Amino acid sequence: MKVRVFVMLKDGVLDPQGEAVRHALGALGFDGVEGVRQGKVIELDLAEGTTTETVTEMCEKLLANTVIESYRIEGL
Amino acid sequence: MKVRVFVMLKDGVLDPQGEAVRHALGALGFDGVEGVRQGKVIELDLAEGTTTETVTEMCEKLLANTVIESYRIEGL
Repeated sequence: MKVRVFVMLKDGVLDPQGEAVRHALGALGFDGVEGVRQGKVIELDLAEGTTTETVTEMCEKLLANTVIESYRIEGL
Repeated sequence: MKVRVFVMLKDGVLDPQGEAVRHALGALGFDGVEGVRQGKVIELDLAEGTTTETVTEMCEKLLANTVIESYRIEGL
């Protein structure tokens, strides 16, 4: 089974990567880019029957730094 | 308007970050993790009326390296 985990920096946490992208888009002539946030997607190929609890545990223990990042699980 | 761009390494392109995550999950005792691929999500806050063509151009020119990465646009 395929599960997708999205990890984004929490609101209020500075996102220098996103800022760099916003700048670069402006420099390339794209107007109207008001904000950019960059995060991670992690696609997991798991054994059938893996529970949401297990995936949540993976997120809490490894995939996300919950102090500054939030995560969302999709596909379970 | 909010647009989300997903950038993933193409199939067949080695993904050392994903491999590292797979290893680490195994080391933490999570069994049955058959594969992990890691990619990027870029959330763009764009001016109303921005077209799909413009976002595609952003992807082609900056957001994705189309030699090794594929992208998907969501939310337009």
